[in-house]
Amino acid sequence: MTISSEGTTLDPWYEQYASRTAGLSASEVRALFAVASRPEVVSLAGGMPAVSALPLPVIAASMERVMSTRGPAALQYGSGQGTPELREQILEVMALEGIRAGVDDVVVTTGSQQALDLVAKLFLDPGDVVLAESPSYVGAMGIFRSYQAEVAHIPMDADGMIPTALSERIASLRAAGRSIKMLYLIPNFQNPAGVTLSSERRLAIIDIARSEGILIIEDNPYGLLWFDRPAPAAMRSVEDDGIVYLGSFSKTLAPGFRVGWALAPHGIREKLVLAAEASILSPSSLNQMIISDYLAHADWKGQIDVFRGLYRERRDAMLEALEQHLPDLTWEVPNGGFYVWVGLTEGLDSKAMLPRAVKELVAYTPGTGFYADGQGRQHLRLAFCYPQPAEIREGIRRLATVVRGEQELLETFSATGPIPAVAYDPHVAAPPPNIG
Amino acid sequence: MTISSEGTTLDPWYEQYASRTAGLSASEVRALFAVASRPEVVSLAGGMPAVSALPLPVIAASMERVMSTRGPAALQYGSGQGTPELREQILEVMALEGIRAGVDDVVVTTGSQQALDLVAKLFLDPGDVVLAESPSYVGAMGIFRSYQAEVAHIPMDADGMIPTALSERIASLRAAGRSIKMLYLIPNFQNPAGVTLSSERRLAIIDIARSEGILIIEDNPYGLLWFDRPAPAAMRSVEDDGIVYLGSFSKTLAPGFRVGWALAPHGIREKLVLAAEASILSPSSLNQMIISDYLAHADWKGQIDVFRGLYRERRDAMLEALEQHLPDLTWEVPNGGFYVWVGLTEGLDSKAMLPRAVKELVAYTPGTGFYADGQGRQHLRLAFCYPQPAEIREGIRRLATVVRGEQELLETFSATGPIPAVAYDPHVAAPPPNIG
Repeated sequence: MTISSEGTTLDPWYEQYASRTAGLSASEVRALFAVASRPEVVSLAGGMPAVSALPLPVIAASMERVMSTRGPAALQYGSGQGTPELREQILEVMALEGIRAGVDDVVVTTGSQQALDLVAKLFLDPGDVVLAESPSYVGAMGIFRSYQAEVAHIPMDADGMIPTALSERIASLRAAGRSIKMLYLIPNFQNPAGVTLSSERRLAIIDIARSEGILIIEDNPYGLLWFDRPAPAAMRSVEDDGIVYLGSFSKTLAPGFRVGWALAPHGIREKLVLAAEASILSPSSLNQMIISDYLAHADWKGQIDVFRGLYRERRDAMLEALEQHLPDLTWEVPNGGFYVWVGLTEGLDSKAMLPRAVKELVAYTPGTGFYADGQGRQHLRLAFCYPQPAEIREGIRRLATVVRGEQELLETFSATGPIPAVAYDPHVAAPPPNIG
Repeated sequence: MTISSEGTTLDPWYEQYASRTAGLSASEVRALFAVASRPEVVSLAGGMPAVSALPLPVIAASMERVMSTRGPAALQYGSGQGTPELREQILEVMALEGIRAGVDDVVVTTGSQQALDLVAKLFLDPGDVVLAESPSYVGAMGIFRSYQAEVAHIPMDADGMIPTALSERIASLRAAGRSIKMLYLIPNFQNPAGVTLSSERRLAIIDIARSEGILIIEDNPYGLLWFDRPAPAAMRSVEDDGIVYLGSFSKTLAPGFRVGWALAPHGIREKLVLAAEASILSPSSLNQMIISDYLAHADWKGQIDVFRGLYRERRDAMLEALEQHLPDLTWEVPNGGFYVWVGLTEGLDSKAMLPRAVKELVAYTPGTGFYADGQGRQHLRLAFCYPQPAEIREGIRRLATVVRGEQELLETFSATGPIPAVAYDPHVAAPPPNIG
């Protein structure tokens, strides 16, 4: 179901939308996710951080300090680029991943999602091509589509994007006369695939992008949330001029603040600030100041360690349950982040299976959302970030029941036609956003 | 100085920007405003609300209550449309201006600036025309330009936009084959002109827009901040399907939260939510919940009365000082809002005069920023919202010194050529955003 198809019958303004608006469609599984948000469903779908593990009194104390010492400034408009204090602190956060930069080149945004939206707005004309991993983040592809750009997926393996495949795709796109504007990557604990781009490949891909004159967008929300060993140094740590780096406090602190950032080469940064001001005037002074106070007073690195331990435990619970209940499926072991990308057995369809899963009170994200080209039916994404380990184990147990049922149906009916779809009611209230 | 002209020499990515990015230029007076933010300068330039008049302990108590009772939800991602609780309360706020609507048709945004940006993104193709008052809000015109639309200014008088002029302009644009996508209006205490659209003209303009099939964008940040008598009922109170209404907590509460909203017809609202999610995933849960708590516990209507009294006093101080020191200039008396729009005597140039004003330690906004077509040199905008009455009086006294000096120069040199420009250093740090 797309909104635009509804519009033809119900919306009197339908003829007047911009051409880019045709690319704006509701997620196919949006309505189903609304059902899946019921408490009896174990949701392995959304990428919501485990904010209940945060030290709430510590954060509340930061709010109180900001209001008692700098209340009027916190409640006022601020710089379109973000407060100098927070931008200085962001340099410290990025230094943990090897990045050295100047405070002038950081732009604070309403989550890193907005940073990506603004970069896309600055660069993408209709018909332009964005190179991205295969699969890639659904929210990024939504942005690229909203500026009428096309995504060309580059194959990955367990070490991330394959440089030779990248070179070949660039050559074939250029031969076809296409304009390639950027290479979008999530090098660490990729969403959805969970894999990490190796150090060697980071260098190889930087070389390719540099020689081809293609801007790299390095999206790194999960980098500090590693489990077994730290991620390789950020791509931005070895290349300055050719990379826009995107960071976020949504996973290392909390998404409710909506504070992220871009680190961009000087000329792009100047335009980013202008585009940000046109879009929202300035990011929330209050939220920036609360985060600054938290970073100054709290053990924020220790809190990241807490998150790392907690997510590692949940990943382990998920992998153990998968081994136990679904050993015939395939996955890579993620060394950080929020997700396990699961390959189904031949003939299963993650999108068709989802209504049955929700009936069994477990939800996941079908693989189809992570491709711009219709792939993904044989994969699904499981998020281990939000549910407790016991819930994760129960969720995987339920998922196994669904998968077994589908496999049996497939055996029974494989000679007689497709599996009949299970109906669900799309007219449900308050769907959640496409988080993660 | 535009950023794009710098880009040709310094920015290696200059050739790759989207065509829309050519429209993204820094304000001509941006650098000068950075100078004007020094404490010794009386700034009558920016539209910053008087947040120091807020009950800070009351707001701090709301923060504390949110954190102690709903901390994890406040720190988590939320609905892309905004929390149902705040959307219900927004209905109560809008009811004060005669608007009846459903909670489903409200979309909470990162300030109403973002709402306007998203509406523009949904509707504007390159070359489309937006009708707007003459003059109009600089930040709106920046948004329209960022989607490569053109602004056609419709003349105003003391009762706001002139309906016959609107009809004529629509006819001439249509005759020229132009696509008119929307009519952007600030009916109450307009920014920058300070005038209010009369009740009769509201109805006349709604009729014209309806019969011509043109969507109205009613931008109403100041409506509740009236001085002598309430503003007429909102245009949205008499027309549902043809109006997107924009509201904000930035002026009735505080801009540091960055919380505004759009109220839109159903089909547009559905697309707005999708566009908002693509752009920022969801608005800040924390800030929405703090505002909800404030609206539920504090005397928010009484606080708006406080603001009304305070701004009325400042307006009066400004008008008295203008009468006293600059009686040969012209202005309309604003019945609310933040601004007085001042007409200069023949031959003066508000843009050329600004460096001299800053040298005299007073700042204003030249009229040129409020027109898309190069008009405005004979006007300037004075904001009375932020400085104390004594500062306002001193600022106008300084401004009078500058105006007298310009007038004398003009008399002396009028036969011999233009007034020589005063140099200033554009390389100054930390410019403020284009607030107001």
